[in-house]
Amino acid sequence: MTTYLEQEIMSQPDVIARLLDRELPRVPRLLAQLPSFAYALIAARGTSDHAAIYAKYAWAAFAGYPVALATPSLYTLYHAPPRMDQALVIGISQSGQSPDIVAVLEEAKRQGRPTLAITNNGSSPLAAVADHVIELHAGPERSVAATKTYTAQVTVLALLAACWSDQQERLQELHRLPEALATTLQGARELARSAERYRYMERCVILGRGYNYATVFELALKLKELTYVMANAYSSADFRHGPIATIHAGMPAILVMPESVTFGDMLALAHDLRERGAELLIATNRPEAQALATTLLPLPDGVPEWLSPITAIVPGQLLALHLALAKGIEPDQPRGLQKVTRTL
Amino acid sequence: MTTYLEQEIMSQPDVIARLLDRELPRVPRLLAQLPSFAYALIAARGTSDHAAIYAKYAWAAFAGYPVALATPSLYTLYHAPPRMDQALVIGISQSGQSPDIVAVLEEAKRQGRPTLAITNNGSSPLAAVADHVIELHAGPERSVAATKTYTAQVTVLALLAACWSDQQERLQELHRLPEALATTLQGARELARSAERYRYMERCVILGRGYNYATVFELALKLKELTYVMANAYSSADFRHGPIATIHAGMPAILVMPESVTFGDMLALAHDLRERGAELLIATNRPEAQALATTLLPLPDGVPEWLSPITAIVPGQLLALHLALAKGIEPDQPRGLQKVTRTL
Repeated sequence: MTTYLEQEIMSQPDVIARLLDRELPRVPRLLAQLPSFAYALIAARGTSDHAAIYAKYAWAAFAGYPVALATPSLYTLYHAPPRMDQALVIGISQSGQSPDIVAVLEEAKRQGRPTLAITNNGSSPLAAVADHVIELHAGPERSVAATKTYTAQVTVLALLAACWSDQQERLQELHRLPEALATTLQGARELARSAERYRYMERCVILGRGYNYATVFELALKLKELTYVMANAYSSADFRHGPIATIHAGMPAILVMPESVTFGDMLALAHDLRERGAELLIATNRPEAQALATTLLPLPDGVPEWLSPITAIVPGQLLALHLALAKGIEPDQPRGLQKVTRTL
Repeated sequence: MTTYLEQEIMSQPDVIARLLDRELPRVPRLLAQLPSFAYALIAARGTSDHAAIYAKYAWAAFAGYPVALATPSLYTLYHAPPRMDQALVIGISQSGQSPDIVAVLEEAKRQGRPTLAITNNGSSPLAAVADHVIELHAGPERSVAATKTYTAQVTVLALLAACWSDQQERLQELHRLPEALATTLQGARELARSAERYRYMERCVILGRGYNYATVFELALKLKELTYVMANAYSSADFRHGPIATIHAGMPAILVMPESVTFGDMLALAHDLRERGAELLIATNRPEAQALATTLLPLPDGVPEWLSPITAIVPGQLLALHLALAKGIEPDQPRGLQKVTRTL
């Protein structure tokens, strides 16, 4: 019998196909109803917060909208929320139940600002408070570690970017996502074996930049939740501003570097890390990067950079799953966690 | 002969006194010249980016301004900067030289938005491009790890918040900062000895919330730069959403919890971590928290919460310094780092 986690990872092509099928016709109508706004303010926690990082890139690049990430404690603990003039306020939460995320949208409502909920639960408190709701249609997520709802959240954010851009080609690229996800899963089967090498890994760094900045945070969280590995995520630029000092011979470094605008920057970093003796695990589809990897997290060709975070996380999810199994950890129930975390 | 790092840590009372002396009379005039704006967009890297996190709390709570952190690669690599309508655009950089931070302010200028540079170098490229400049007056920083320029940057951001709030009391509180810093340094002398216990520490988590969310990121960076310890920083809320799974018996956890609105939340987390067998290092001035600490990072009484990040980082700087010495690492020159990092 396989785990819920594995089933949910493997279901991602279907989940994304269903999501696009249900929401693609709805979203343009929803956007037409929004008043104008100068920037987006997103409230989210954990995995959903990593999806929000993706919006910082996609929404700026496709629609020119800057994205600010909300600091929920200002609303719940300090009772000092900012003025939200000119903001579209968005809450992202799988369960739709964390009171701090709900509080940000309630305040937006008080201030008369437009609100949007992105959630897997259309009858949640978050959905109830929002003017508009986009559901993930991912089905119940039984594993504590979120996988299919993460890729679904990023897909919703990509879909919004595509609709704002008004470029038909972007929508066609979105339609090819389920197939790209199936190819990714197929190509990453070897990880069941190669994960074993990391049975005694206790820490690692994870590096990426631009659109895949979100991916490194999400991959770090999967490794922490599922394998208790102390994983530190950085952009390649911030990494050079200090944390690169922690690298020593044998230190595992996971680089997320599909074909992209940031590929050259990441390749230079990969060479630098090799010289420092780091062991490289590389998520890529490019031969120059594959050649530097001790362990390859294979990515498919032909995925445009703006959608690459949706496929690039998948080998990482599988690495975390198989490493948990190699370490003798039950993947569906990591110690000390519940599925729904309610924070104030 | 002592290190530059130690000298710079010890100089902080004087640095902050000089900064307030020079800039307090200037800042209200500078603010009067700014056009109106709906939110602030801050570009920064490394330590300066941690100072920017402080602004998210202080500027919202005191002036109602939401703060967005810029993603420099949109400007430099993707050539897809967002529209900055309604934004005040701020660059924070000790050296004022990182091209990516300069690029964000150049774009703001092109879009006709007001710009402000906060830097230790008034003749830097960043200062040259900005409409307004606030200098740190911290003197040359010779240690690679930033200390006095961090507390100076946070003090500038606090000063701006105080001026916007128009509350005379806040300015008086600012004036008491140099003395509070001197008391903090005095109280933390024991750390030279207690750091030795952590000679073989390889990893730790660092936790805080609200105003001191900035502090945990900055402390993690100091430990990484100076001692190569793999330090992971979290808000107490995000920590409960997943990473708490990495805690096992003996894991060192540093909690930054001065008297504050978030103290109760942090105290509950401290108890939870003790039950899981973690070893607690606690930066606090409160007896209930002191009682839980294996190692105390003492903080002074009487510092208002909004200024507590400026004192709360200081015992952490000293811990990093003395741990570097205990590990036989030269504090002024960590491996693989230069003082000025130029990233695109």
